[in-house]
Amino acid sequence: MTIIRIEREEKDSPAEIIRREVDEPHSQVVRFGADKPLKLDAGVVLPSYQVAYQTYGELNADKSNAILICHALTGDQHVHNVHPVTGKPGWWDSLVGPGLPIDTDRFFVICSNVLGGCLGTTGPASKNPATGEAYGLSFPVVTIRDMVRAQAALIDHLGIDQLLGVVGGSMGGMQVLQWAVTYPERIFCALPIATAARHSAQNIAFHEVGRQAVMADPDWREGKYLSQGTSPRRGRAVARMAAHITYLADPALHRKFGRRLQDRELPTFGFDADFQVENYLRYQGSSFVERFDANSYLYITRAMDYFDIAAEHGDVLANAFRELKSRVCVISFTSDWLFPTEEARDIVHALNAAGAPVSFAEIETDKGHDAFLLDEPELFGIVRGFLDAAAKKRGVKAK
Amino acid sequence: MTIIRIEREEKDSPAEIIRREVDEPHSQVVRFGADKPLKLDAGVVLPSYQVAYQTYGELNADKSNAILICHALTGDQHVHNVHPVTGKPGWWDSLVGPGLPIDTDRFFVICSNVLGGCLGTTGPASKNPATGEAYGLSFPVVTIRDMVRAQAALIDHLGIDQLLGVVGGSMGGMQVLQWAVTYPERIFCALPIATAARHSAQNIAFHEVGRQAVMADPDWREGKYLSQGTSPRRGRAVARMAAHITYLADPALHRKFGRRLQDRELPTFGFDADFQVENYLRYQGSSFVERFDANSYLYITRAMDYFDIAAEHGDVLANAFRELKSRVCVISFTSDWLFPTEEARDIVHALNAAGAPVSFAEIETDKGHDAFLLDEPELFGIVRGFLDAAAKKRGVKAK
Repeated sequence: MTIIRIEREEKDSPAEIIRREVDEPHSQVVRFGADKPLKLDAGVVLPSYQVAYQTYGELNADKSNAILICHALTGDQHVHNVHPVTGKPGWWDSLVGPGLPIDTDRFFVICSNVLGGCLGTTGPASKNPATGEAYGLSFPVVTIRDMVRAQAALIDHLGIDQLLGVVGGSMGGMQVLQWAVTYPERIFCALPIATAARHSAQNIAFHEVGRQAVMADPDWREGKYLSQGTSPRRGRAVARMAAHITYLADPALHRKFGRRLQDRELPTFGFDADFQVENYLRYQGSSFVERFDANSYLYITRAMDYFDIAAEHGDVLANAFRELKSRVCVISFTSDWLFPTEEARDIVHALNAAGAPVSFAEIETDKGHDAFLLDEPELFGIVRGFLDAAAKKRGVKAK
Repeated sequence: MTIIRIEREEKDSPAEIIRREVDEPHSQVVRFGADKPLKLDAGVVLPSYQVAYQTYGELNADKSNAILICHALTGDQHVHNVHPVTGKPGWWDSLVGPGLPIDTDRFFVICSNVLGGCLGTTGPASKNPATGEAYGLSFPVVTIRDMVRAQAALIDHLGIDQLLGVVGGSMGGMQVLQWAVTYPERIFCALPIATAARHSAQNIAFHEVGRQAVMADPDWREGKYLSQGTSPRRGRAVARMAAHITYLADPALHRKFGRRLQDRELPTFGFDADFQVENYLRYQGSSFVERFDANSYLYITRAMDYFDIAAEHGDVLANAFRELKSRVCVISFTSDWLFPTEEARDIVHALNAAGAPVSFAEIETDKGHDAFLLDEPELFGIVRGFLDAAAKKRGVKAK
């Protein structure tokens, strides 16, 4: 098993660290040149690009034990190692690791930073080789399918014909569905979690608020903040705060904070963070600023907005899955109002109609959309059981 | 019946009109001086203040036909006349007027701008008589109870001992509940619509995002934008966009916009408002900027956050209503996720426990929180029936 150790240079500020991660990340990197350009849905070609990725566990001899994890909007490839910018544990440390449901003692786990990201895969913060400056808004708008194309190029590079599984939550789940549609023969099973086959009007609306918050910040400088030495911190923090509310559910918020005051007995009758929930949100906003590029946030939210799998199939979702033979397990959470169960059910019905083998679990929880990142024993049990069964069916050998 | 005609001077910009409305509004105004100072919950005293209000219909001889309407967060006193800033019809024109459920041929209808507002009642944009400058953040933080105290002073001024009814939705409903608690003997009936007895953690969180968006705008100038000749337009627009999503419901959004594109066949792969829902939100944001003072927005959202009727009654809501003898009709909407039906039910249960006569209607609609402002025949029927019955019971004579 490979453990990637990341030494943080404490003297550097998070802003300096993240700028370095953009082009020279603490990750393995594969660079694709002019011989393998990336054709994008926007109708343009990215002549060269790089994909940064982490792997955990070992690829077995017949290359049948590879699982690709797809990360969410503000996630990254650091699933199961200390984060190079924040110093925090991997974002899916509870699910991925030795003996855990996605068992790195048995499986070869891969996670790459998405196209458009800011942790080492080419995105708007990356240096444009043609100019030597960061792309900024000259970077083409990418789609979920473009992200998946870049992942497929990585999987080619690793010499893997068919992945045992693709797993992801939220935007990660969109990528899983896109794999099932674009490369149905290259996946043995798929696990889309807390996701939808298209982004709803309400979700587009929330994303638009976040983008407008970033773009309203004068330090955004029409997207040229990197070359002008500024950073749209305030706008980005507001965007994150708004988004963060949508990841939670009111019952959990009430349980966690209620109307409790922050370090005081009585309200101050002012605009300080009187309530704990305000203090929590402000922290979420400011800590996000440290680890995420503002333009990346614009691009990745836009990719989610454009996501609509049925659109190219006469608006009939089932038609998108016609080629799929892989087993799919769809998971939703009862209190998730960003990607509600009805949208998961639409996926299940379409898979049924397309004749793909599908199972569906709606998990009872009050934790909202964020549940896919948290300790949810039922989630862990389902993921373990589903992957074990797939590995058995495929005859995966340990090493 | 009095019809207030408002001549808009077309040569003036909305910004100039709204600045004038703050101190010299197109409304009737009552000024309270040093003999009637307003003691605020924050523990300070407002030595003088004014209340701007509109009336419709005529007060009858025994002053038994007066109905007070309480407006919502971004509402104002212009219930049933052309708005002096926007030139649009009154915000409750569908419910209030001759022959309508709140019938101005029978009732004397009053609506005043709330304390902290910006349409003529004293608020942070008003001129501080002590300095000759706008109060800005030196204005004390006010509460829903303070708003109701100012309304009671107006009702005194009008010589009315007991209102026939108090009616309001959203923050207006909070004021209705506060009337029932603070002045139980001064109201004959009460109609709180789409509201709650306390502001939830999730709602506080959304308000905090809005405030942070305003305060992140450098043109806010730490609240001193009026004296410095700037206007935090962008921050205020972002705040309004975020809030506006919470007023709607996803089914209605889908029906209205779905994923339809704005005036184009194909996505632009850019950051324009590609989707109709984005375009709609941007319009909501920018039109709000024209008619609402940014600091007022901070103060009024704060007042809502502090609202928690049970807090001073040992956290037992029923205890707050012990003195109430008036008939109450509580109304909620099925798709309202900002003030969900469960919170209306909590009010109903508390009123029941307190022995107050209460009826409850949950109206089936997919229009979300905004339903209280829209054409909802069932709402109209209930309001009409409830007020008619109250008027009959009180023996209200026509004139």
